[in-house]
Amino acid sequence: MKRAAIIGGGVIGGGWAARFSLMGWEVRVFDPDPEAERKLGAVMDNARRALPMLYEARMPEPGPVTFHGTMSDAVSGAGYIQESVPERLELKQKVYQTLQAACDPGAVLASSTSGFKPSELQAISARPEQILVAHPFNPVYLLPLAEVVPSPKTSPEIIERAKEILTGIGMFPLHVRAEIDAHIADRFLEAVWREALWLVKDGIATTEEIDEAIRMGFGLRWGQMGLFETYRIAGGEAGMRHFMAQFGPCLSWPWTKLMDVPEFNDDLVDLIAGQSDAQSGDRTIRELERERDNNLVAMLRALKGQGKAAGRLIAAHDDSLRQPLEDTVPMVTVRRIVPVDWTDVNGHMNEGRYGQVFSDASEELMTHIGADKAYIAAGHSYFTAETNIKYHAETLAGEAIFVETRVLLGQGRKLRLGHAMKRASDGALLASCDQFLLHVSLETRKSCDPLPKVREAVERLAQRHEDAA
Amino acid sequence: MKRAAIIGGGVIGGGWAARFSLMGWEVRVFDPDPEAERKLGAVMDNARRALPMLYEARMPEPGPVTFHGTMSDAVSGAGYIQESVPERLELKQKVYQTLQAACDPGAVLASSTSGFKPSELQAISARPEQILVAHPFNPVYLLPLAEVVPSPKTSPEIIERAKEILTGIGMFPLHVRAEIDAHIADRFLEAVWREALWLVKDGIATTEEIDEAIRMGFGLRWGQMGLFETYRIAGGEAGMRHFMAQFGPCLSWPWTKLMDVPEFNDDLVDLIAGQSDAQSGDRTIRELERERDNNLVAMLRALKGQGKAAGRLIAAHDDSLRQPLEDTVPMVTVRRIVPVDWTDVNGHMNEGRYGQVFSDASEELMTHIGADKAYIAAGHSYFTAETNIKYHAETLAGEAIFVETRVLLGQGRKLRLGHAMKRASDGALLASCDQFLLHVSLETRKSCDPLPKVREAVERLAQRHEDAA
Repeated sequence: MKRAAIIGGGVIGGGWAARFSLMGWEVRVFDPDPEAERKLGAVMDNARRALPMLYEARMPEPGPVTFHGTMSDAVSGAGYIQESVPERLELKQKVYQTLQAACDPGAVLASSTSGFKPSELQAISARPEQILVAHPFNPVYLLPLAEVVPSPKTSPEIIERAKEILTGIGMFPLHVRAEIDAHIADRFLEAVWREALWLVKDGIATTEEIDEAIRMGFGLRWGQMGLFETYRIAGGEAGMRHFMAQFGPCLSWPWTKLMDVPEFNDDLVDLIAGQSDAQSGDRTIRELERERDNNLVAMLRALKGQGKAAGRLIAAHDDSLRQPLEDTVPMVTVRRIVPVDWTDVNGHMNEGRYGQVFSDASEELMTHIGADKAYIAAGHSYFTAETNIKYHAETLAGEAIFVETRVLLGQGRKLRLGHAMKRASDGALLASCDQFLLHVSLETRKSCDPLPKVREAVERLAQRHEDAA
Repeated sequence: MKRAAIIGGGVIGGGWAARFSLMGWEVRVFDPDPEAERKLGAVMDNARRALPMLYEARMPEPGPVTFHGTMSDAVSGAGYIQESVPERLELKQKVYQTLQAACDPGAVLASSTSGFKPSELQAISARPEQILVAHPFNPVYLLPLAEVVPSPKTSPEIIERAKEILTGIGMFPLHVRAEIDAHIADRFLEAVWREALWLVKDGIATTEEIDEAIRMGFGLRWGQMGLFETYRIAGGEAGMRHFMAQFGPCLSWPWTKLMDVPEFNDDLVDLIAGQSDAQSGDRTIRELERERDNNLVAMLRALKGQGKAAGRLIAAHDDSLRQPLEDTVPMVTVRRIVPVDWTDVNGHMNEGRYGQVFSDASEELMTHIGADKAYIAAGHSYFTAETNIKYHAETLAGEAIFVETRVLLGQGRKLRLGHAMKRASDGALLASCDQFLLHVSLETRKSCDPLPKVREAVERLAQRHEDAA
């Protein structure tokens, strides 16, 4: 099993540990904090609930997460090492000396630092070529971005391996070609943070008003297109040049106070923290995390449905996780978690989603008999003509379910499937579905016999299921 | 019919016109540009397709949009006037003189300006009390935020009426209590824009890399929580104070180049525009708009499902649009547009969504017979025990559909409904559903008779439908 070492197990380190473990990696953690195991456990609980909701494919078996008393013990045999210790350069430099004394020289040695340059981290290191920055964003188990920043001394092999591993655990490695303080994203966060502090300090807006100004407006644009593509559209038919001509001049206007930095003192902290308490104080951090994760899962799944931005990345990763069905009778066609966007305000799966699970089940069976994406692209498919669903029990967001499918009839253009949706924990029957499908030509939109290869596969499968019945 | 005047019909003015019209207002437009009608028509087409997808309720009849040769003609009888002319102060000031010479002194006179203060707009005005800023965000027909900025001279009545009207058309009026250049949101946009120009100018990142850095990471956080609540969570169990203690010091670090402003020259424009072309150039602005709107609709509906941020606002607005069902036989229980998140990559409505439409239909009927939210909150409801759906024809995203519902049986705890989903354009049958429901106690989760009021309503309705059959 692939092995990752997590050095520093706070909110960020814990997020890394969760992502690696849930993607099937063995995870070895080092963190001197006596509370580390409890804190990391809380992050793991959040991740275990939310991350699998992003995927339709069956998730890998989670890898074990173990805690170790020394760094050298934690890194032994690790192919990927992620450092997330506090933002103190001397501390990080010392940590790399200790890690490199014990770790595999071929392992990726990555830092979560949001500010330091890789060359600074490498300064007193024996093997600088092994070190780079892989800067993630909280929550690490849901947000895909990881800024991968090498220094001129980092070896090309390490850079490539880091990008490959991060892609494998569902992240988006953004290769930052030149090292600068705070990389790319945190430059923006810092600029906005400064401006926000001024607005609150000057009494222009409260923390809550500022959050509304962002999430009711441009935050939604940025979540799906970012800055430049959004502005390109704002430029209208004349595009980016027109936009720049229109707004270029503003650069010289006094539109921001960022020429100056607010003094960071207790009064400012009291002001901001006080307003933040008033805004969110009635909800605990756990509740806020749950709310944030539900929102992110729903938004990411929405983008996945559109096949755009972060959603396109997740869809591709989902495909890479798919396994061919095992040829059992009945066939297990679906194994998944009920995601939050499938449930109503009470957390119960909506009636319509039962139908979707069963249509997903038949789609998996289609693929199994060769009526896959390529077959459909070539002009043929199966359309559902009729479904009969019996609802036996409720199911909740986060619950693991699976579907058993029997072929009841497979003759020429006709296909009849019997699905049973069950709860994974106790095998209880949640719903059953009798589904009748017809093979169609996507050209004429009329029913017709399947192409020989599929027809034979259907009839063979129907026979197997009949014999086993 | 309520009447709005739109002065300036570009991308922003067109978005305002679309929002007012689609929310049932009569819209009168003034724009000297001979191309105005065509340009505004393009925005209207986008809005007509996208905005109704945010709602489950039946939308109001769109109000007529007419073009007028003079401002005085356009504003006659208008209760709300939105100015969106180019960002030149003298021009705007002259426009207000002309508008106020003709408009109702009680009308709201709002500016879309992204930079000017209301007191600047009022400077040479006869009735400053009538003028305020209502700063929207593109696309105006999808993004809820409108920064409402009064000056000390703006009358409280005008401020309240503006907020009320904006709320009525589904927007989020953010009352900015102190007027400053660029209000609130554009302060952040300007800060980020400057930093982004530096990163591109210095060759650190391309426009595409910057967009990825935003939409794969913090853009997703900001779309649902904004800045401060996100950071509060990042602070972990110790909250905002801990976060500030951790990152406060960065303020004095050289993390941003914003102490300085890049020179705005042709080289910079060429560099940015060139990269933007390379990034998005293969898609036309129309295609990009379509993509953006689909993403925003899907994300906003995702947040609506969670009842959070912009989604909570839309859900509340949706409820305010709901009308009681007419007591016809059959009853029309659903009238809606098929939203993009209900369709597959080919744009066809997913099998599961048919079931959802029918369950929405029965929910509307429940409400009609008194088994409404309050009844459910009090501990009783109807659960679907079995559905039989026949699929007759495909339907596409953006298509208008309706559902006719017949009560086939209403006796004690038993309720059987017959639904027919039809295409609005030609009444063609898309699917039919036979749905069997049982009345249950939410306490025991077992079936039981409805409370008298509902039981009588059901049996009366069943009788009516039987007689009419």
